[in-house]
Amino acid sequence: MANALRIGLAGLGTVGTGVIQLIEENSALIARRAGRPIIITAVTARDRTKDRGVDLTPYRWVDDMGELATAADVDVVVELVGGSDGPALTLARETIGAGRALVTANKAMIAHHGAELGALADAKGAPLKFEAAVAGGIPVIQGLRDGAAANRIDRVYGILNGTCNFILSAMERDGRDFTDVLADAQAKGFAEADPSFDIDGVDAAHKLSILASLSFGAEIDFAGVDIRGIRKIIAADIAQAQALGYRIRLIGLAEVDGENGGASLFQRVQPCLVPLDHPLANVTGATNAVVAEGNFSGRLLFQGAGAGDRPTASAVVADLVDIARKETGPAFSIPTTELEKLPRATAAHRINKTYLRMLVADRPGVLAEIAAAMRDAGLSIESLIQREVADGSALIAMVTHEAREQAVSDTLAALAGSDSLQGEPMVMHILAN
Amino acid sequence: MANALRIGLAGLGTVGTGVIQLIEENSALIARRAGRPIIITAVTARDRTKDRGVDLTPYRWVDDMGELATAADVDVVVELVGGSDGPALTLARETIGAGRALVTANKAMIAHHGAELGALADAKGAPLKFEAAVAGGIPVIQGLRDGAAANRIDRVYGILNGTCNFILSAMERDGRDFTDVLADAQAKGFAEADPSFDIDGVDAAHKLSILASLSFGAEIDFAGVDIRGIRKIIAADIAQAQALGYRIRLIGLAEVDGENGGASLFQRVQPCLVPLDHPLANVTGATNAVVAEGNFSGRLLFQGAGAGDRPTASAVVADLVDIARKETGPAFSIPTTELEKLPRATAAHRINKTYLRMLVADRPGVLAEIAAAMRDAGLSIESLIQREVADGSALIAMVTHEAREQAVSDTLAALAGSDSLQGEPMVMHILAN
Repeated sequence: MANALRIGLAGLGTVGTGVIQLIEENSALIARRAGRPIIITAVTARDRTKDRGVDLTPYRWVDDMGELATAADVDVVVELVGGSDGPALTLARETIGAGRALVTANKAMIAHHGAELGALADAKGAPLKFEAAVAGGIPVIQGLRDGAAANRIDRVYGILNGTCNFILSAMERDGRDFTDVLADAQAKGFAEADPSFDIDGVDAAHKLSILASLSFGAEIDFAGVDIRGIRKIIAADIAQAQALGYRIRLIGLAEVDGENGGASLFQRVQPCLVPLDHPLANVTGATNAVVAEGNFSGRLLFQGAGAGDRPTASAVVADLVDIARKETGPAFSIPTTELEKLPRATAAHRINKTYLRMLVADRPGVLAEIAAAMRDAGLSIESLIQREVADGSALIAMVTHEAREQAVSDTLAALAGSDSLQGEPMVMHILAN
Repeated sequence: MANALRIGLAGLGTVGTGVIQLIEENSALIARRAGRPIIITAVTARDRTKDRGVDLTPYRWVDDMGELATAADVDVVVELVGGSDGPALTLARETIGAGRALVTANKAMIAHHGAELGALADAKGAPLKFEAAVAGGIPVIQGLRDGAAANRIDRVYGILNGTCNFILSAMERDGRDFTDVLADAQAKGFAEADPSFDIDGVDAAHKLSILASLSFGAEIDFAGVDIRGIRKIIAADIAQAQALGYRIRLIGLAEVDGENGGASLFQRVQPCLVPLDHPLANVTGATNAVVAEGNFSGRLLFQGAGAGDRPTASAVVADLVDIARKETGPAFSIPTTELEKLPRATAAHRINKTYLRMLVADRPGVLAEIAAAMRDAGLSIESLIQREVADGSALIAMVTHEAREQAVSDTLAALAGSDSLQGEPMVMHILAN
């Protein structure tokens, strides 16, 4: 059997210890499948003394993380430090710069610096792999890069954040409001103390920008993702959506838009209403799922655990097996320098059914005012529910017929400042089936 | 850009013409992703004159299929002739024997001769790839071989035959009986004139045996698959299953059984009751879906079009891209000679909930007789529906509590020959969630 592939592991949080456990537990079968053993030789983390539940004594401890980039006993650096910049980025640059393979689970770093790191990796002939950066244990990077390689991919979308899906599923199950469920999720460790990266959609946007790049052969444009999170969803939204035949999911969606002559890139993370017979409607809890629509394959769905130490370790080590097998090509499927820099698509011409929910004053004329604003904007109603809520207000929830997003904006602009409305209206698009 | 990868295409049915269309339509993006153009140079089929809706004049026509194995203008042979033996097998042996890459969509040939062909391919250093042989356009072979490579896979199962799923979905939707729906599906071209390979479970068993081999590192044992099809399912089964909270799906399931000391291989294709909240319950129409349970990844689901010219072509060309990239290892992930020859597992000790449906004489004492047989076998009832049907018979449908399969066999043995039963009881296991 060929020489072992030697790993230097930076970062010993839950995923790092998961990688150690996996490589120890499955070492024999990994060696058979990879054609050579994969072994950890060196490890580094901030705190050497912390008890992580794994025995670190077999591995050389490295105090200076940067040393892994050039250490003589390391073939591949696994970066699990996290953070888009700082030490993780420095380590990545130095590792790839030294012509050495880098495996990372760091979605923020790839979303922000993927173009630079990919170009460097291509120039140095160094593998750069990040299966674990998107959708945890689901091999979707590989599914897009290899499995769907024959297809022009028209659209990629999915449930990319397990925390949000956990919260939305719990709201659905228990009829509780967002704040309630979040507090509960935090208490149980399913959500971070500072949950904003998750619930405001930033984490999903990181992943979406990576998926879009791979799917469309476009340069990553994280800053071009239109991001909305789930904070403003109330229990009544969930209930009305259900009454109308939908479930609410935080959806990241990217597609190449050909509307204005040349191709442009549309990327958005937002809560959507998903029809009950769409596969994503049945994705509950912390599960992730990604749909890619190829021009020959049709709709492909990849589903599994979106986070967690063991699933994420599974993705990290899948990358290591690829490297051991020398089955690694350009980081973004085509050479990074060939990725197209697509302009950003606008949304106004996009056609959707739309869910609108407003809290309004419970007095005569309010519905007439809203209906008139919709009529003037060319927005028509498919179904509508109005019901009284406490303290003399009413809740109006409706799904419109298909219309350009401009019509929705126009409606809301016409109603802005009206004293009939109590608070901001909630707008969510319906995911097409 | 490197030299083109030159394809010799054998078989010009719907999938063959799909491959031609795909390679023509997506040629530019395939060349970018593969790092080199993929072009068809030679084609062969039985009938040169047939109008297939594609222009064959750019390709050299070969009368003698066997010529492709050694033709000077061919790097890879794509075998889409079909049939487990005969010309397809001869072509495969000659191609691989000549040290040349073979891509095939031929599940029957791989199920029957995969061990021989894989060993030959390994010995000759010739890639042998068959993504299109399992689950059409879904990149599940790759998902198991690469994406899940770090995992010990404990169980692999799924919906592997689109025709059966189409029929079961239609029975569900329309409340019609099997024979009715089959005739309709045949008229519409969704089922073959001779549908037995599909509806009797043989096609699903071919695919299952391939998935099992890849998942467990075991030698393919198609003959070891316990196969039951969907012919005996009646409309009442679908209705009772729904009333009890299930949908009926033809499930192929394989796992390594550790019950009797050493590992043994359990493989079965049979209609099962799938709980409504299981992802496979929501797979409708001709869609396929495969679940693999890894010891680190957890449950991975791959879903998409299980057949059709375009999806299957997508899988064929994905293999060609891998070959163009030189990302090909052993056909079965580990060297074929290292695949374990696992003994076949028995079923009697397996623990399931079970659905039992019987048509019985509608007179006093019948339920008592059945209940006594169950009691004696140690089989208890979770839920039961009895209702009158036409002509003085009654239908009894029940779901048992978890029990060893032996208890079900013992019950049926005790009731065999009883004049209370009208026809054979229907037995389907509940898929565990």
